[in-house]
Amino acid sequence: MEIDAVTDAAPAPTAAMLAIGDEILSGRTKDRNIGHLAGLLTLSGIDLKEVRIVADDTDSIVGALNALRGAYDFVFTSGGIGPTHDDITADAIGAAFGIPVTAHPEATERLVAYYRSRDLPYTEARQRMARTPKGASLIDNPVSVAPGFRVENVFVMAGVPSIFGAMLDNVLPTLPSGAVMKSVAVVCPFGEGDIGGPLGEIQKRHPGTAIGSYPKFDGSRYSTELVIRSRDEAAIEAARVEITAMIDGLGPRA
Amino acid sequence: MEIDAVTDAAPAPTAAMLAIGDEILSGRTKDRNIGHLAGLLTLSGIDLKEVRIVADDTDSIVGALNALRGAYDFVFTSGGIGPTHDDITADAIGAAFGIPVTAHPEATERLVAYYRSRDLPYTEARQRMARTPKGASLIDNPVSVAPGFRVENVFVMAGVPSIFGAMLDNVLPTLPSGAVMKSVAVVCPFGEGDIGGPLGEIQKRHPGTAIGSYPKFDGSRYSTELVIRSRDEAAIEAARVEITAMIDGLGPRA
Repeated sequence: MEIDAVTDAAPAPTAAMLAIGDEILSGRTKDRNIGHLAGLLTLSGIDLKEVRIVADDTDSIVGALNALRGAYDFVFTSGGIGPTHDDITADAIGAAFGIPVTAHPEATERLVAYYRSRDLPYTEARQRMARTPKGASLIDNPVSVAPGFRVENVFVMAGVPSIFGAMLDNVLPTLPSGAVMKSVAVVCPFGEGDIGGPLGEIQKRHPGTAIGSYPKFDGSRYSTELVIRSRDEAAIEAARVEITAMIDGLGPRA
Repeated sequence: MEIDAVTDAAPAPTAAMLAIGDEILSGRTKDRNIGHLAGLLTLSGIDLKEVRIVADDTDSIVGALNALRGAYDFVFTSGGIGPTHDDITADAIGAAFGIPVTAHPEATERLVAYYRSRDLPYTEARQRMARTPKGASLIDNPVSVAPGFRVENVFVMAGVPSIFGAMLDNVLPTLPSGAVMKSVAVVCPFGEGDIGGPLGEIQKRHPGTAIGSYPKFDGSRYSTELVIRSRDEAAIEAARVEITAMIDGLGPRA
């Protein structure tokens, strides 16, 4: 639901996420990064508009990335930047931008120093983690050194949730944030079938808000959580008053 | 990684998922349907190739659905088929197919009988749940009656996980299944940087398998889970023998 047009705030920046990995599509790994990113972007006033999950396959990554980076202000990717043969994200990002992928000097320096300090060889596999499209800027990895990177509006990050989260913490403060989307939840003891009609009328009278209705089912009966979202707190409150009155008007639940 | 070409099995059917809902993109709700579908499709021998998550927005749903239904054998959607104003999935599916959306006679019959038996009015909101693109076939909902529906290769299901799961249980037995993808996991006490080189060579020698490498980090050191996937058990076993030998050859971990 598009609500920017009716508030005074400048349009919020938009974003998409591209999660990369066979293991998510096979069900072996349950993604935990999408929900994490979604929550933090909401707090930053950036609208997450679309998420795609694709396999470790160059054509799939290139196609999705080019669609998303053209359509949204920022794109965040997760997965496929490790040292093994199935980590093809850096090459695919380079292919999507038409930029050659080479050993990044600063990334190489960090990795060489890290493995030297641990007395470990800088294997060919480890060298893969220094590769980025030429000219990319690095995203620090405080967990395990091997960096993510940024190319234009695309932020390329690890798939391991602790590392994805740490990289994201380094990225978010660098982004322009929009007016933060606020939300208020109203617990409604009635099911959607009872409230759907009047709730739709309330939505029409409050176009500066987006009113979401989320059914709950406890195994025998329905209730609903109603969430009013807007960048304008007064608009939220006006809708909340009407929704509360609607619920009160339905009387005690049978 | 494309591995069908080198096995004897017929190509597996392909699938995509389209999860619909502002609440997932805002981070309010953590999706639980993607992982559930992914696991069951793998067991059915159907390859989940792509997932998209979009907002409750007609253009976004129509665009994503038309891209996915043209590219894959089956598309599964979740969310947006309830009785409230933000439930726009049925109309968006109709728009995507260019089919008018009307009250489905059998769905109407089920809902009328259900609400009559509960002595509840068949409100305008509840009537919304009987609407489908004309000619759609219904997907039974054993949890709360209001059905999902199928139009050509698209299966439209609820977003509430218990209902999504129940509908999916009714859909999967009706689909042709491919040769089931098998997988074997090998626990490797070494990090990806140690094994990446030789593992890549093993992958090259076993093109009938897809070998995935999944790093684990316990806060101080890395290990790896290696997963060998194929529709051919002998191919898996051949790769497993080589991987085990590689790990043994690295000696006890320092």
